Amino acid sequence: MTEFSFLDDYSEGAHPQILQQLAATNLVQQTAYGADAYSTEAAAHITAQLGPGFAGAVHFVASGTMANVVCIASCLRPHEAVISVAAGHIVTREAGAIEATGHKLITVPAEDGKITPDNIAKALAANAHFPHMARPKLIYLSNATESGTVYTLAELRAISALARQHGLLVFMDGARLGAALASQRNDMTLADIASLVDLFWIGGTKVGALLGEAIVIANPALVPDFGFHLKQRGGMLAKGRLLGIQFQALFGPEKLFTTLAVHANAMAARLGAGIVAAGGRLATATQTNQVFAILPDAVAAAVQARFAFYVWEPADAGHSLVRLVTSWATTEANVDAFLAELRAAMP
Amino acid sequence: MTEFSFLDDYSEGAHPQILQQLAATNLVQQTAYGADAYSTEAAAHITAQLGPGFAGAVHFVASGTMANVVCIASCLRPHEAVISVAAGHIVTREAGAIEATGHKLITVPAEDGKITPDNIAKALAANAHFPHMARPKLIYLSNATESGTVYTLAELRAISALARQHGLLVFMDGARLGAALASQRNDMTLADIASLVDLFWIGGTKVGALLGEAIVIANPALVPDFGFHLKQRGGMLAKGRLLGIQFQALFGPEKLFTTLAVHANAMAARLGAGIVAAGGRLATATQTNQVFAILPDAVAAAVQARFAFYVWEPADAGHSLVRLVTSWATTEANVDAFLAELRAAMP
Amino acid sequence: MTEFSFLDDYSEGAHPQILQQLAATNLVQQTAYGADAYSTEAAAHITAQLGPGFAGAVHFVASGTMANVVCIASCLRPHEAVISVAAGHIVTREAGAIEATGHKLITVPAEDGKITPDNIAKALAANAHFPHMARPKLIYLSNATESGTVYTLAELRAISALARQHGLLVFMDGARLGAALASQRNDMTLADIASLVDLFWIGGTKVGALLGEAIVIANPALVPDFGFHLKQRGGMLAKGRLLGIQFQALFGPEKLFTTLAVHANAMAARLGAGIVAAGGRLATATQTNQVFAILPDAVAAAVQARFAFYVWEPADAGHSLVRLVTSWATTEANVDAFLAELRAAMP
Amino acid sequence: MTEFSFLDDYSEGAHPQILQQLAATNLVQQTAYGADAYSTEAAAHITAQLGPGFAGAVHFVASGTMANVVCIASCLRPHEAVISVAAGHIVTREAGAIEATGHKLITVPAEDGKITPDNIAKALAANAHFPHMARPKLIYLSNATESGTVYTLAELRAISALARQHGLLVFMDGARLGAALASQRNDMTLADIASLVDLFWIGGTKVGALLGEAIVIANPALVPDFGFHLKQRGGMLAKGRLLGIQFQALFGPEKLFTTLAVHANAMAARLGAGIVAAGGRLATATQTNQVFAILPDAVAAAVQARFAFYVWEPADAGHSLVRLVTSWATTEANVDAFLAELRAAMP
Repeated sequence: MTEFSFLDDYSEGAHPQILQQLAATNLVQQTAYGADAYSTEAAAHITAQLGPGFAGAVHFVASGTMANVVCIASCLRPHEAVISVAAGHIVTREAGAIEATGHKLITVPAEDGKITPDNIAKALAANAHFPHMARPKLIYLSNATESGTVYTLAELRAISALARQHGLLVFMDGARLGAALASQRNDMTLADIASLVDLFWIGGTKVGALLGEAIVIANPALVPDFGFHLKQRGGMLAKGRLLGIQFQALFGPEKLFTTLAVHANAMAARLGAGIVAAGGRLATATQTNQVFAILPDAVAAAVQARFAFYVWEPADAGHSLVRLVTSWATTEANVDAFLAELRAAMP
Repeated sequence: MTEFSFLDDYSEGAHPQILQQLAATNLVQQTAYGADAYSTEAAAHITAQLGPGFAGAVHFVASGTMANVVCIASCLRPHEAVISVAAGHIVTREAGAIEATGHKLITVPAEDGKITPDNIAKALAANAHFPHMARPKLIYLSNATESGTVYTLAELRAISALARQHGLLVFMDGARLGAALASQRNDMTLADIASLVDLFWIGGTKVGALLGEAIVIANPALVPDFGFHLKQRGGMLAKGRLLGIQFQALFGPEKLFTTLAVHANAMAARLGAGIVAAGGRLATATQTNQVFAILPDAVAAAVQARFAFYVWEPADAGHSLVRLVTSWATTEANVDAFLAELRAAMP
Repeated sequence: MTEFSFLDDYSEGAHPQILQQLAATNLVQQTAYGADAYSTEAAAHITAQLGPGFAGAVHFVASGTMANVVCIASCLRPHEAVISVAAGHIVTREAGAIEATGHKLITVPAEDGKITPDNIAKALAANAHFPHMARPKLIYLSNATESGTVYTLAELRAISALARQHGLLVFMDGARLGAALASQRNDMTLADIASLVDLFWIGGTKVGALLGEAIVIANPALVPDFGFHLKQRGGMLAKGRLLGIQFQALFGPEKLFTTLAVHANAMAARLGAGIVAAGGRLATATQTNQVFAILPDAVAAAVQARFAFYVWEPADAGHSLVRLVTSWATTEANVDAFLAELRAAMP
Repeated sequence: MTEFSFLDDYSEGAHPQILQQLAATNLVQQTAYGADAYSTEAAAHITAQLGPGFAGAVHFVASGTMANVVCIASCLRPHEAVISVAAGHIVTREAGAIEATGHKLITVPAEDGKITPDNIAKALAANAHFPHMARPKLIYLSNATESGTVYTLAELRAISALARQHGLLVFMDGARLGAALASQRNDMTLADIASLVDLFWIGGTKVGALLGEAIVIANPALVPDFGFHLKQRGGMLAKGRLLGIQFQALFGPEKLFTTLAVHANAMAARLGAGIVAAGGRLATATQTNQVFAILPDAVAAAVQARFAFYVWEPADAGHSLVRLVTSWATTEANVDAFLAELRAAMP
């Protein structure tokens, strides 16, 4: 075992306050399958941030793949397809989960990790020989993206406008939405998102929950019968309270969701700055809680003896691109210990 | 809110020791997606009970529907069908989850809640006009059954023998396996089950876990690539530790899984005996933690003012069949308070 | 080989006029994938019979299973289920084709081979525990039924009324619709059907076509995007003209569809009357082109030496239930030869 | 209507001899669902060309999409994926048919229209993060390709060797296999193909049949239960004789399959040579029955007044890339009339 891991943001358990709220409510009997008081209150906390016009619904599920499967499969007919960047999580990291529900994924190139109106428009043009081609119907995007970048409000507005012009749905995978909203680059709110996309989800797993993602159905037309899809895909927990209690903690008065994400991003910024100060380079500016750095191969290997992180791919000769992820549980001490080790190893 | 609910066995949170173990390990970093030390150890605890010849695998998932979907879909080809009693959970309570993976369910009548070799044989005979009929391939059974009865070892052996003779797989839904194994009627062990079925799962949700079911793949031929199915169906948790820690607690030295199930069954027995003593009748002998009683309509209604339970269906004139479920969290005091209320309401 | 087969109504090729029209148009170049002039004209012939208010669409496919799959899968969301009699073709003879598209089949008992409003209502009541149960959404019925009986207009109206009251769709499998409409018991027209169901299809295969079924989408809301489903399920033929030409012949001025079905039914009536005259019994009154007769076992076996037919199942001691099917190609001479053989074999 | 269409090779009906054999056998009664004598004999004709070691099976279906769906879905488990060039027919022209059976398509760039071992190897390397990625299991290729090129025996051997090394299946879409085998560039036989791939199909629709594709299962392990998949996907025709008779004609003593394909290719060669002689250019050397030519925009437009063909895409300034397809029914007179028109229009 290494001394500390920067592999990902889900290596620990839950923020202590979440455990505390689980303990505090443990013996209170509650209605099952998501109809408990905690889930209702957690949904109300979230809804309160979605703007006065919000007429949708909030549901909780256990995993991000579940959130993606239920959201996408619930709103498409069999011949309708999804447009995603080629590096999209549903394309490359979910073992064909969306195709397993019967839907084609149409992939487009990313720019700075993001899907763009231009690339969407090209995909629409290239997939218009109907009915021999599946009909593009839903735009999938992740915020923050797989490469740690965040969408601006203007970018999301442009995508949303294009989608509405063409009768497409927009769906945001929010596994990293906490980090995105806490980014210095971010200029949008949950209410902005709710007004621009049809469905999105707010990841709890990466922001201090034991597990749990909050699905927000922003488009009222997609609300009816959503519960069937949750149940059919195995996403409805008997003790739905477990999800409700955690999102109560995250979105309640103490706003853990925000404070924990801000902390993780700050740790990443500290890490990035320290790497540069130590003579390393950043491959991209750090926007969220992922740091992409270029280190001499020998340095990377030396530091890995005490700290775990991914060597992402070879960079230029003698150098590696490494990825370091911080979380709510990363301390300044953890960062500083890493940086001390790095400085010692640098030539 | 009523004073106490006998609606089901998943109205509370977790057994306190589980919460304690979650807290104790909370900040230890662990590998994600089920490869953590806790899951490994929990699997070892379970495997230790499966007999010296066990050469399969153990995986953990969040819900029973997920366990059923992953187990069934992972081992069938598209044209293969499942045989189940008509009241089977996959038939009547999972929103078409198995059909959503493409497989036909062939239903047969139950006897005392159970599937029988005779009824399986009839289904095989009636579904043999190949290839115009889907090929029956997997026998689904629940232990305890939907009506609270338990299989005997002889019954399971007969089903298993028939299955092997016909090249069928046997799959046991173990949502209520804790209650079944703790039943006075039970005469089988986990090792017996592992030797007679191809896959089964051990329900944690109904025995004091926050969530979680342990899938046991007993047939080694079904082990390869199982992880893909977990991932594809959304059943792989980033923080798999959450499941591992709970099953460590349930199957560790204190054997919570057994003691909690024995307690729940004892509470049901106490409840059943008290109902009879109060002048009520039992619809069926209580084998596990479900009590099916017949009460005068007015009595049932009066008691419901303080205690929650399901009025299952009308019985004879003026009487209702009610269902009362006990759990690890039901106390003698809860039972006795119910019985006092019942006695007071009886004519 | 036997002298003549009464096994089914698809043992021969096509009515000679169909072959003639194929030959006559063979070298005329036509647009592919169903957009040819013959398909357009055939659709117009059919539409002309569907009433002045018809605002739907007509498509042609190669097989009955294809028609059922495309019709059902095109109009259901993933959590929606089909109600059918337990003997329904989609339940017992299509290898799980509907489930392979993800949908549950809910089965109900038949009365005289038919689905009834009462049994539908019971199925609705028994499948209402939402969202734990799939939502019943489409009523499947066959006319003529699997047992050769036909629906009356009053029966279809009652089913349709119930469906509309509950927001359900009605779909009629018309593999044997020719025989049904040509039955002495029939009192409905294609226009009646179009006004009472949402989708249905008109079987060509059993009425003298080489292959081909005409799908009629009567409910305009189900028309958009139907072509995608045809294509996606493999049901769109490059040379769609092959289907169009045949339905031109069947529904053109000579009304082959009607005359061939009337002929087949008349041959069945002649067969049934002759069996009774020979001392046999009919299990059910012959309504279409299927004769269900009860013959002494030895007689059935003796006649099978020269004529092929199915021994359906044992009847009372020493007797068998046999099924004899006539077609457009069955001649009076074929029937009379069978009857002569029967008379000779009768004790 | 134009005078003659070079849009595709399925604008006419069937070769006259096929119609003649349909007529000649029309009233002979035959067993249904593919068990007729004609299908058996047709399969034997094909099998005779597959080499002495052939231990597989031959089945007939109505359409190419059906052939692709049944072949692919019958041999993959839910988590297994297909590798195809991005322009593959299953990727771009079948409305998501493969994904509708639950399988992911992994796309790779084509070289000269073809999939290459290098690109397959790259896809394997990029899709190896198991179980988070679907497992690549089947290589899909078309011969001739979507752009009219043909595989050499050496190329197919290299792909097959790579596949066997990695435990992958190879599947050849043979919609244009007649044209490929008749190509001057071709150096392989059906027996070669059967020894190198696991499944392939031989397209009849584009070589003079009314409809029909012959699926060859070369890998004996894939033979069992194949009929279920045909039935379940709607691909089993009641009058399977229709397919058998046509493939009897194509693969019988007169070897229509070969002579018709040779003729179509010869017409394309004549067309290509004439275009060059007239001062046009070919975009690619004509290998099969598709001619890709570059013509001045005005010339293309002028000729389209009398002859139908696709303007594929703009070429350099003032020029268009056009596609002309010949068939068994294209005559020298048709070609020469086109060329005369072209010469007249050329500047």
